[in-house]
This record gives sequence, C-alpha cells and structure tokens, in this order.
Amino acid sequence: MSDLYARRREALRTQLRERGLDALLVVDLLNIRYLTGFTGSNAALAVHAADSPGDEKHTIFCTDGRYLTQAEHQVPDLERIIDRASAIALVNKLAAQKTKHRRTGYESHHVTVEALDGLADAAAGVELIRAPGMIEKLRIIKDDTEVEALRMACAAADRALADLMAHGGLRPGRSEREVARELEDRMLENGAEKPAFETIVAAGANSAIPHHRPTDSVLQHGDFVKMDFGALVDGYHSDMTRTVVLGEPADWQKEIYDLVAASQAAGRAALKIGADVKDVDAASRDVIERAGRGEEFLHGLGHGVGLQIHEAPSLSKTGEGTLSAGMAVTVEPGVYLAGKGGVRIEDTLVVREAGPELLTLTTKQLMVV
Amino acid sequence: MSDLYARRREALRTQLRERGLDALLVVDLLNIRYLTGFTGSNAALAVHAADSPGDEKHTIFCTDGRYLTQAEHQVPDLERIIDRASAIALVNKLAAQKTKHRRTGYESHHVTVEALDGLADAAAGVELIRAPGMIEKLRIIKDDTEVEALRMACAAADRALADLMAHGGLRPGRSEREVARELEDRMLENGAEKPAFETIVAAGANSAIPHHRPTDSVLQHGDFVKMDFGALVDGYHSDMTRTVVLGEPADWQKEIYDLVAASQAAGRAALKIGADVKDVDAASRDVIERAGRGEEFLHGLGHGVGLQIHEAPSLSKTGEGTLSAGMAVTVEPGVYLAGKGGVRIEDTLVVREAGPELLTLTTKQLMVV
Repeated sequence: MSDLYARRREALRTQLRERGLDALLVVDLLNIRYLTGFTGSNAALAVHAADSPGDEKHTIFCTDGRYLTQAEHQVPDLERIIDRASAIALVNKLAAQKTKHRRTGYESHHVTVEALDGLADAAAGVELIRAPGMIEKLRIIKDDTEVEALRMACAAADRALADLMAHGGLRPGRSEREVARELEDRMLENGAEKPAFETIVAAGANSAIPHHRPTDSVLQHGDFVKMDFGALVDGYHSDMTRTVVLGEPADWQKEIYDLVAASQAAGRAALKIGADVKDVDAASRDVIERAGRGEEFLHGLGHGVGLQIHEAPSLSKTGEGTLSAGMAVTVEPGVYLAGKGGVRIEDTLVVREAGPELLTLTTKQLMVV
Repeated sequence: MSDLYARRREALRTQLRERGLDALLVVDLLNIRYLTGFTGSNAALAVHAADSPGDEKHTIFCTDGRYLTQAEHQVPDLERIIDRASAIALVNKLAAQKTKHRRTGYESHHVTVEALDGLADAAAGVELIRAPGMIEKLRIIKDDTEVEALRMACAAADRALADLMAHGGLRPGRSEREVARELEDRMLENGAEKPAFETIVAAGANSAIPHHRPTDSVLQHGDFVKMDFGALVDGYHSDMTRTVVLGEPADWQKEIYDLVAASQAAGRAALKIGADVKDVDAASRDVIERAGRGEEFLHGLGHGVGLQIHEAPSLSKTGEGTLSAGMAVTVEPGVYLAGKGGVRIEDTLVVREAGPELLTLTTKQLMVV
C-alpha cells in the first residue's frame, strides 16, 4: 500500500512545482488519509516539492501521542513527529528548514481565520500561500484501489437489500426505523465498516420527502417504500436508492416509477468523457420536464462519491466542469408528489471510456414486494 | 420550546452589546441549533443586538429550499430567507440595512480563510469583526432543558448495558463487533436517536488500547472487556465507560480495577464550583501516580459533553479555566497495561452547588460476568 500513497504524493508534487510552491501544508484529515493512509483524528502533513522523483526526505507527518503506534504502522515511510498541535508543529519545523520551504501553500479552504493566526505566528521566514483544493483536484479521479473500495461498498449495500427482501424484512406493519436498522445490520454483515450516512427509509406519503429520516411510521399495503442507503468500506462511500411497492402498484405509482426510471437511464447514458456536468443533469431532467413533472424533481441529479459521501463533481444545474475517466458519481433523479408518495432511483457509477461502469447492481425494475 | 431559544438569543445579545457589536453572523450548525432549534445541514443566522429586550425583528435565519417546511416548524419566530449560500445571503441582507449592522461579528473560529472572502465581498459597508467562541461560552453552562436531554441520553446507555448483560450478551465466543452492535441496538430501543460516537468494545489485550475500534476478536474467559459508549438524545451526547471481567478476576485485574475506581472517585469528588480544571485532573491522576502507574494513564481526565461529544471544558493537564455550576463533564481515568489489558471507568456528571450530579447510573463495582 505504501507505494500507492507515495504515488499520490508524487502527483501532488508535480502540481506544487507547477504552482511554484516549495511545500504544501495539508490539514484536512481526508486529504491526509488520501496521501498517507493515516486514519486517526488528529494529524498534519507537509509535502515537500522535491527536485527529484521519489525524494521524500523533507516530507513530514505529525500526529499526537495517542496515535504513535498507529502512525508507525500506517505511515512507515515518512519522517514522523509527535505533537498535539500538529499543523503548528509542522510549520515550526518548516521554518527551521527555511531555505527549503520559502513558499509554503496551505489549505485555505480548510484553515479557519483563527487557525491561520497560529500558523502565521509559527511561520517566521516562511511565506504561507493560499492553495485551496489541490488534493481534492487529485481525488476527483479515482485510482484502481479507490474504485475497488467503492465496488466493495456498493456490493455490501446490494447484498444487504437482497438479504432484507429475501428474509421478508419489507412488509406491512414494520416501522421505517426497523427497516433502516435491519438494512444497516445487513450491510455490516456484508463487509461494511459502518453505514455511509444516515439510512433513509420513507414509506407512503413520507416517500415524497426527499431526505426523510426514518420514524416509527408503519409500512402499509400499497405504500411506496423509498430506501436511500450506503456502506463504508476502507473509507469509501457507496450510495444507492431503490423504491419498491408493497403489493400491486396503482397506476399513478407505475407512471411515476417508469418516468423516474427513464430519466435515470438517460442520466446514466449521458455519463460520457468530456460531457459538461450541467448537460448530464439536463439529459435526465428533460425526461421528467417533458412529462410535465419538472417541478416535482426537487434536487440536482447527482454528486461525486469517494472519501466523502458528497464530493466533486456536482451533476446539477449549477455544477461546473466536465467528466473525466475515473470520476465516481451518483445518478439519482426523483419525482415527489407531496402528501402522496415519491420515487427516487439512484446508482453509483464510474465514468469510463467505454461507457459508465455500474457499481450498484440491484435491479431497477419496479420491485413489487 | 421557542421561548427557550429566544432566551438563549437574549443572552447572546447581552454579550454583543458588551463587545460593542451590532450583530453576530452565526455559521456553525451546532451554534445555530442551540440558538434556534434548527436541525438541518445548511443554515446561517444573523442575531441583531437589539436595543430593547425581546426585539427580534432584525434577527434573520437563512436555509436552503430543502428545509423550507422544516424551518417553518423549527424556527417559526424569526424572519426566514431561503438561499443556498446562506451566510453570504445574510451578509447581503445586513449590508442592505447597514445603518443597523455597521459592526457585525462573525465566527472566525469556524469560517475558513476562503469563505471569509465570500463574506467580505458581500459586506459592502458592513465591518466584519472577528468574534470567536461567543456562543460556545454560553453553551458551556447547560440549562435545564439541556441537562434533561443529557439525562435521557445517559439513561439510554445505562439501560442498554443492563439489557445486554441481562440477556447474556457478554460471553466468551462473541466478537467485539457483535457486542458493540448489540449495545448500539439496545440504546436505540431505549430512546437513543443514534449512538453518540463509535462504540468501543475492547476485549483482552485490546482493552489496553485506549481508543480501540471493535474487531472480529472474540471475547475469552478471563478477559477484561472495556466498553465506552453513549447515546444521542435531542442532539445531546452521553458518554460512559465500564470495564467488566469475564469470569473470576485475576489479582492484577483486581489491583488495577480498584486503582482506577479510586482515581475516578477522587476525580468526581474534585468537581467543585471554582475548582481549576487542572486540579481536577491532578486529584484523579495523583491516585494513579502514587501507585507508580502514572505512565499508564495515557490521556486527560475528561471533557465537557453537550451538543458535541467533546467540548469545553477540558479536564486535563493543559486545560484552562475553572468549574461553574451547570457544566456537564466526563470523569474517565484509565490504566492500560500494554499487551495485557486495561481499565477505564467513566461517568457523565453535572457540576452542582451541592456536589456533582451523576447522570450515568450503572454501578462502578467490578462486574464479574
């Protein structure tokens, strides 16, 4: 694994040299995990823009005493220092070597106004330069290790839903909360470290609320049951929504289900390298708007997934940028009829040259339970 | 409930006037919850330092379209605006009323360097002034509503452990992960919204790792089993640790258990109004140091609990300040014998004039299972 992280740091160094930075101070824990594999709750990392590839002798990792042993295991290949005030300790260290780190970038999108004071006090002779988003720019393209973690996370969710249904877990009389808890238990049984986010189970009229939290409401015959859930594996989040009907679907249910399914298929088909994210949203949204239900599709089409459940790119009207190979995104249109019921269908996919790779494999046919 | 929030905002207004601020821009979601009851994931709040008590006509709340209905319910008594860029929208609004908000404080300990740019761009005519920690200063003293939520959260954890043990949930052959999951399920059955943090179950040698995450390791006869867990109720976190023995305790187990219990009792006894937090830590630590085991007590004595699982005050060597009535804190000394086993005993308590009020009621006698 340590090759993997060294490779990611090397990619960052290329960016540092392009921006004329001598080093980057990394304080965001997810960015540190991405670059080192460290999973503790306090750390900072100074990545030095070395002159020659693979030269890591001035790249330094800092955490506190609680993580001494863990850091030895997870970050064996870097110089480590132990200090509770990890970012300040690293800036002190950089200041002591100031010929090498005159221009040090910092994550100005993560450092607060107050925290910057602390860094500036320690920075004698080192110029602290805003450098937002450098690692996020790397993280937006998933490497094979990341896609494999996403694949396992999606599989845990797929299997959990299959197990839930095979054991009669979706039936009138159970509460939304019970179903949510069982889905979560079954994700854990299938390899999840934990749920990727608060599981949504929304039955009947509640299914018309896009981000309903499970309640003691009881599932009833004829209800739509919308389930939006995901698993965490190796720090990576899966995200899937399926909507089923308890008993024979009514005509209005079939109508909006088919509409959302068609919209979702159009969104997936639009996941092409070079596509503008606004156009992907539009491809899916057009299907719903043409059916006169545009007002009932209340949110954006999708978002990136990875070490965060919501990350770049945003597939929406206000999103920016174009798709590249290796981006992992959700496609999740919905139609919500207030007071009546709603449908959302969501997959996690990876953008590929040959067309999107589907990671959530549960059927999108209307499941009648 | 809306009286409660109005009262808290009134307390903040007193502070604003003392600091010569015309308004405070609040961006931290927990601080917003504290001041309004709003529980969504995007919001900002501008609290205006009115001239007369109870005048809230220039206090404005902002959230995005997803929370329109929720905000009507949770924040009925304030002017509401709907905008995705909630903090910037409020600064725009303040700038439009600039005679009333010339000097506006902002939460500089929560606003990032990049985000401040966005606020400053919108602030034409409004001076943005650093104002870190104003609401946290109020939150450190819990009111009756908050203590009641903490009490219910502690009760959910107490009952969960009692139920687990009554149903034979602690027994050789079960994995740490299974026990953790059952504890969490039983907290939910007993009124928790969710676990307050990742439940720690650490058996045998793992119990010597202060913050061990549950694994597939199996509980064995003779093991210490250390369980650190808590429940969330109305947004408030409980925190409790108990360590039990599976079968008759060995002499070394009795010795360190009794030592930690004595240290914990000394820590609780030191929770007096006016006590320096360093002295509280020292009162508990001295007991362990006198037994020659100071090196094996690897962390601070405790921390505040409330809307966050870790908040002020810190009861530790490096903590600052003194105790006041209404502070809710943990007292959690531990002794960890690497490779062998460890004990931690932790309660959540409220500092009171008449001595600390214990919220976690599970026995601290060594439980032999």
